[in-house]
Amino acid sequence: MRAYAIALQPPAGPVYVSIPLDDWDQPALGEAVVRSVSSRYAPDPDRLAEFAKRIRESKRPALVYGQEIDRSGGWEAGIQLAEQLRAPVFLAPLAERTSFPQNHPQFQGMLPMAKGPLGQRLRGFDLAIVVGAQVFRYYPYIAGEYLPHGTELLQITSDPSDAGAAAVGDSLLGDAKLTIESLIQLVPLNTDRSLPTPLPANAPLPSPPNNPLTANEAFAALSELRPDNAIVVQETPSNSGDLLNWWPTVAPASYFTFASGGLGWNGPAAVGIALAQKKSGSGRAVIAFIGDGSFQYSVQSLYTAAQHRLRLIYIVLCNDEYAILKEFAILENTPKVPALDVPGLDVVSTAKGFGCIGVQAQTTEGLKKAFAAALKADGPTVIAIPIKRELRPLVAS
Amino acid sequence: MRAYAIALQPPAGPVYVSIPLDDWDQPALGEAVVRSVSSRYAPDPDRLAEFAKRIRESKRPALVYGQEIDRSGGWEAGIQLAEQLRAPVFLAPLAERTSFPQNHPQFQGMLPMAKGPLGQRLRGFDLAIVVGAQVFRYYPYIAGEYLPHGTELLQITSDPSDAGAAAVGDSLLGDAKLTIESLIQLVPLNTDRSLPTPLPANAPLPSPPNNPLTANEAFAALSELRPDNAIVVQETPSNSGDLLNWWPTVAPASYFTFASGGLGWNGPAAVGIALAQKKSGSGRAVIAFIGDGSFQYSVQSLYTAAQHRLRLIYIVLCNDEYAILKEFAILENTPKVPALDVPGLDVVSTAKGFGCIGVQAQTTEGLKKAFAAALKADGPTVIAIPIKRELRPLVAS
Amino acid sequence: MRAYAIALQPPAGPVYVSIPLDDWDQPALGEAVVRSVSSRYAPDPDRLAEFAKRIRESKRPALVYGQEIDRSGGWEAGIQLAEQLRAPVFLAPLAERTSFPQNHPQFQGMLPMAKGPLGQRLRGFDLAIVVGAQVFRYYPYIAGEYLPHGTELLQITSDPSDAGAAAVGDSLLGDAKLTIESLIQLVPLNTDRSLPTPLPANAPLPSPPNNPLTANEAFAALSELRPDNAIVVQETPSNSGDLLNWWPTVAPASYFTFASGGLGWNGPAAVGIALAQKKSGSGRAVIAFIGDGSFQYSVQSLYTAAQHRLRLIYIVLCNDEYAILKEFAILENTPKVPALDVPGLDVVSTAKGFGCIGVQAQTTEGLKKAFAAALKADGPTVIAIPIKRELRPLVAS
Amino acid sequence: MRAYAIALQPPAGPVYVSIPLDDWDQPALGEAVVRSVSSRYAPDPDRLAEFAKRIRESKRPALVYGQEIDRSGGWEAGIQLAEQLRAPVFLAPLAERTSFPQNHPQFQGMLPMAKGPLGQRLRGFDLAIVVGAQVFRYYPYIAGEYLPHGTELLQITSDPSDAGAAAVGDSLLGDAKLTIESLIQLVPLNTDRSLPTPLPANAPLPSPPNNPLTANEAFAALSELRPDNAIVVQETPSNSGDLLNWWPTVAPASYFTFASGGLGWNGPAAVGIALAQKKSGSGRAVIAFIGDGSFQYSVQSLYTAAQHRLRLIYIVLCNDEYAILKEFAILENTPKVPALDVPGLDVVSTAKGFGCIGVQAQTTEGLKKAFAAALKADGPTVIAIPIKRELRPLVAS
Repeated sequence: MRAYAIALQPPAGPVYVSIPLDDWDQPALGEAVVRSVSSRYAPDPDRLAEFAKRIRESKRPALVYGQEIDRSGGWEAGIQLAEQLRAPVFLAPLAERTSFPQNHPQFQGMLPMAKGPLGQRLRGFDLAIVVGAQVFRYYPYIAGEYLPHGTELLQITSDPSDAGAAAVGDSLLGDAKLTIESLIQLVPLNTDRSLPTPLPANAPLPSPPNNPLTANEAFAALSELRPDNAIVVQETPSNSGDLLNWWPTVAPASYFTFASGGLGWNGPAAVGIALAQKKSGSGRAVIAFIGDGSFQYSVQSLYTAAQHRLRLIYIVLCNDEYAILKEFAILENTPKVPALDVPGLDVVSTAKGFGCIGVQAQTTEGLKKAFAAALKADGPTVIAIPIKRELRPLVAS
Repeated sequence: MRAYAIALQPPAGPVYVSIPLDDWDQPALGEAVVRSVSSRYAPDPDRLAEFAKRIRESKRPALVYGQEIDRSGGWEAGIQLAEQLRAPVFLAPLAERTSFPQNHPQFQGMLPMAKGPLGQRLRGFDLAIVVGAQVFRYYPYIAGEYLPHGTELLQITSDPSDAGAAAVGDSLLGDAKLTIESLIQLVPLNTDRSLPTPLPANAPLPSPPNNPLTANEAFAALSELRPDNAIVVQETPSNSGDLLNWWPTVAPASYFTFASGGLGWNGPAAVGIALAQKKSGSGRAVIAFIGDGSFQYSVQSLYTAAQHRLRLIYIVLCNDEYAILKEFAILENTPKVPALDVPGLDVVSTAKGFGCIGVQAQTTEGLKKAFAAALKADGPTVIAIPIKRELRPLVAS
Repeated sequence: MRAYAIALQPPAGPVYVSIPLDDWDQPALGEAVVRSVSSRYAPDPDRLAEFAKRIRESKRPALVYGQEIDRSGGWEAGIQLAEQLRAPVFLAPLAERTSFPQNHPQFQGMLPMAKGPLGQRLRGFDLAIVVGAQVFRYYPYIAGEYLPHGTELLQITSDPSDAGAAAVGDSLLGDAKLTIESLIQLVPLNTDRSLPTPLPANAPLPSPPNNPLTANEAFAALSELRPDNAIVVQETPSNSGDLLNWWPTVAPASYFTFASGGLGWNGPAAVGIALAQKKSGSGRAVIAFIGDGSFQYSVQSLYTAAQHRLRLIYIVLCNDEYAILKEFAILENTPKVPALDVPGLDVVSTAKGFGCIGVQAQTTEGLKKAFAAALKADGPTVIAIPIKRELRPLVAS
Repeated sequence: MRAYAIALQPPAGPVYVSIPLDDWDQPALGEAVVRSVSSRYAPDPDRLAEFAKRIRESKRPALVYGQEIDRSGGWEAGIQLAEQLRAPVFLAPLAERTSFPQNHPQFQGMLPMAKGPLGQRLRGFDLAIVVGAQVFRYYPYIAGEYLPHGTELLQITSDPSDAGAAAVGDSLLGDAKLTIESLIQLVPLNTDRSLPTPLPANAPLPSPPNNPLTANEAFAALSELRPDNAIVVQETPSNSGDLLNWWPTVAPASYFTFASGGLGWNGPAAVGIALAQKKSGSGRAVIAFIGDGSFQYSVQSLYTAAQHRLRLIYIVLCNDEYAILKEFAILENTPKVPALDVPGLDVVSTAKGFGCIGVQAQTTEGLKKAFAAALKADGPTVIAIPIKRELRPLVAS
């Protein structure tokens, strides 16, 4: 019997197991574990007590929730902590997961992804409690203070590197779920504190719709058919604000995007996530919202989706341009950056080339019809939507 | 005026120039040279004399020509040296360029790309003279001696790293063209030596043709329309032997492939070569012979070809499998290697997705028609040819 | 004011602070902390419960204590856990700190530093509980099983890399002290289990002593004057077994050596440790036992010791040879390894060259006299002791 | 028979040979060559012709000679080229070898080792011809132009990396000796050009001498006993100008120092060079001029010198300070840099510790006596000379 070594990569490092070559066809990796390691750790009780004390003493705290809460299974605990504190909850900038219901009245949107505006947004809070995120992920450089005068910061993270690299504040190492559950015991409900003002409702849509549709209109139309348990994957950075409005994440393990902003990750990631749903029999559809430029990076992953007949729908927003970089160029005042237009891509044809169903939709009716069909299809569908070109400020002020 | 630094990479290292931002649209790089460096060097005269003496004293030499001869512009000099020596000329294994006319009576094909068989092939020669190649590039490991008993080896290369890393023989550093031109003066015509036996003619083709066609039949049909000055790019490793038979390289700077065998290089390389023809106005068509698996690695490069309307024709050989690795698996006696079949790829549709002309051809007539049209087209064409599956020995014995 | 950035490296990563240039002479680093990070974390309660259950169910457990216990301040907790379990306690092979009193009746010596003998040493135990150490550090390769049949292994470590890289067993991540303290609550005193047999007393010394002295005799003589709170630093690998017999570590933070066995670390480390004693005013003397070869690696560090008038005594064992490598050569059956004799080194003169007191001692009386003087000296002393050459088995069987 | 692989590192890369283990004691490496590679290459004739033309057309050329000329054996050729051109010859800044007689009337000293002053020094020349050196090695940053307006630069080097990295000028690749010999043929003797003014004679020494001596006085005294064929190794950067005045290099392969300025290289290098003299039987003494700080970096190398009884004399200039960095600090206007004083080093005692003869000399008479004895000694001598502290400008203006 010849054997091959295969590496599994658990949180605490690789474990090597040998799989007999004769079993190559069906390597039952799940059964081949020969040793196990910790996948999480708890906070130091002394340090946790210090953090709890500072939270109890805060007059006006703000919560910033990052990806580690959802990843650790701490969604429900995160809600409970927020409600005990009656504090506003921000999404950490450029988080790759959502860890708090975006329809919750305490939800206040994503913090700006640049130093100056982010600091400004925290004005008035005496304590920022960052849970499960870096301090902070930024995209463009916009000058300003990390924190406003009078604001302190606590970071809770399971990543020693992130703790060490944080630009400001004090850090505690610990699994997000375990730490939040402990904090709930140490920080009593604060009934004196007034609740934050909820975010405003979405602005009404124009009638008749734009032609071509805006991304906002496309997301609104699609949201009418949103399956309850669908998983969203997102790589349409210039339209991500609109997507959040119409497709808020309201349940754990339901939203995935890239950590920071390196394009090309979400296409194959959506395939992997859909494959996991198939293997586990969860029955959850995966909806990948993706730009026509983003779509190209690892377009070959469509083939895997087709071969495995995955329940995966790509919503490709076709503006024939690299909008996020055009917005970046405006911010940086660098006109004439070359190669930001990408005309002549036939996304439907490419989809078919790799064995997917491909369809173009130009109206809200056509879009809904295509989406309904895709949700019932036996295999992946790519829906290409020509959209109106719009350049907006890269970082909302 | 703001300026950006741009790096050019000549043979002897980078040179940095600044291009004013206002000229971003058309950076006239060709005019921006601020300093120049050597692009080649000559052999040490003393060492060259030693090499010439050993060549003169050889009873039965063999020449092995690699990529550096063509790259250095030494094609004609290489022919003259071979003819003075009346020695057989082998193509160095896995060379990324061809440096000797493959219809020349002294041409003896490519050396085997594995240690044992290569050593065997040199049996009977007292001196192997390797010019402009590594000693040696191998693909699979097949045991055996580097050289047969009684065979010595001289290596001429411009790459100190290759000289140092050669497994056997003595090495001389020098530009291939300069060194060959000097050797021609030092090594007289040997009229006593009998010329090697030319390679046999191609075997007759079956009638009627196979259905689907074999790669050999497809290459034969296409060769009837071969433009005189066409450039060939090759990434169909399992069929490269057949291609050499029907599309022999007979002129300099006419054949390009990957150095060694890392798939994915030739697709975008063909675009770059075709772009160079357009810029220089050479009028030469580029024909890229490529497997349906190889085609996928950097398939996005088709878009660049389409946007620039390049005179580039992809001949995609569709066998729905990864044949070279299946052949490798047979050699290594490792059955059941997974994921070597790639069914369900629609190459024509993919080509259209990126803006190329796409056409499928199944017969010799259809193929020739499609090829003739492609040669006249204003932009790139992808011709997909379903071919018969054939697994042959990875290394010819 | 100009400022320099200085990096401090706490457990969880660097923290950068700025020191004004004008204060360069006396940078009050201790006061310059601008942010704080966790320096430890606790075990996952669920995983800890699993470990506790396996420990409770073990019939015959063995404890293996490594450096992390002492480093985390868990010395007392480690004793309590051992006494509750009534289990033998081994020192982890090549640990850079000692974490258990070496005069405790449960102490069983260091595990062998090679795979086969180490596995053999654990025969008869159904559970090895490794706390605060790698699994395992080895020096030579000696074939054998990692663990005997029927022995399971638990590893407790704060280092995710060590947890992932362990060759066998299951791992738990956690600070050694916090984890042991929690385990003490979960693992009851086992009064049924018989205590292990204590190690035998030291063999009687020969009378009259050897001439030159053996290392064992020198250590015995010096031990008569051992200050209660002295710190030992060790880099005399071929004599480390004898040193353990006569200078057992009986208190926390009292023994330091290299992690694994890279020579040259302990010379300057002893300087740093002595400098820390001076700064803190602990009054503890530092005794560095070091070979005459080891002494040379970073001999320049003597200068720092002299300039700071540190209370540091080097006991240099002069055998004019590189004994540990000679022993290695015997094990590997590689005779005639060159350059393992180092005659002609005048350690006393070298010591004086860097400003230390230097003295040679050849008898037990002379040695004790020199040591007594050194303990009272205002500055570092180097005591050179010519010792008898002895080669012993590299790994005790 | 067991064998070990040993790597030799010739210019063009490593060659591996096997030495039988039984011969470990006396591995006859010189006889074990199994393949050979080029150790040099010649210039491209076309590029050489371009360079020759530009040299012929220059009105006022300057030669800058670097280490590669001496290393390639081109000392005599370098003299001939200089005399044909009647051009001044500068030593390339921080060259690790001298390649031109420093008592030759055309010799003009070392170019400044900083950008601005170096550029100024070349004012008035229309062509700088740099042979066998980087363009340029600098030590501190001092602003200015690489070259004055109107000065062009040619670089001849065998190092492609240096050619690519040169900041200004055009580069030719080629062995220094081969290239100079070819240039001599292409560049006729220019009898119209006036010869440069020779450097002034050394200033008279004070009488009586300083007490302690200056480095200049020590070098002058020692020079009276200079053996004709002695080899100089230098690592006393703050006194290197004085050394050049009194110990000019006048023959090939006679002067070695560090490439650039990383302290610690010359101590062990002197041992290696002296070992080579012993092995070759050249009979040449090696005189290492070295600072008392430099002396410490790899002071252990003294042991090798003593064990091999090498004919090696260290002249250690003891100023108890790190003068070059103090000069650097003055240039950079950074007062109070800590740790630049090194009092309390007893160099003589250290020398004895490693088995060398050690002696201190404080007067010119004592110094000459010690040096005379050292030249006759059977083994290495370290002569420590207390010298007067002097801080001079880091870069002469």
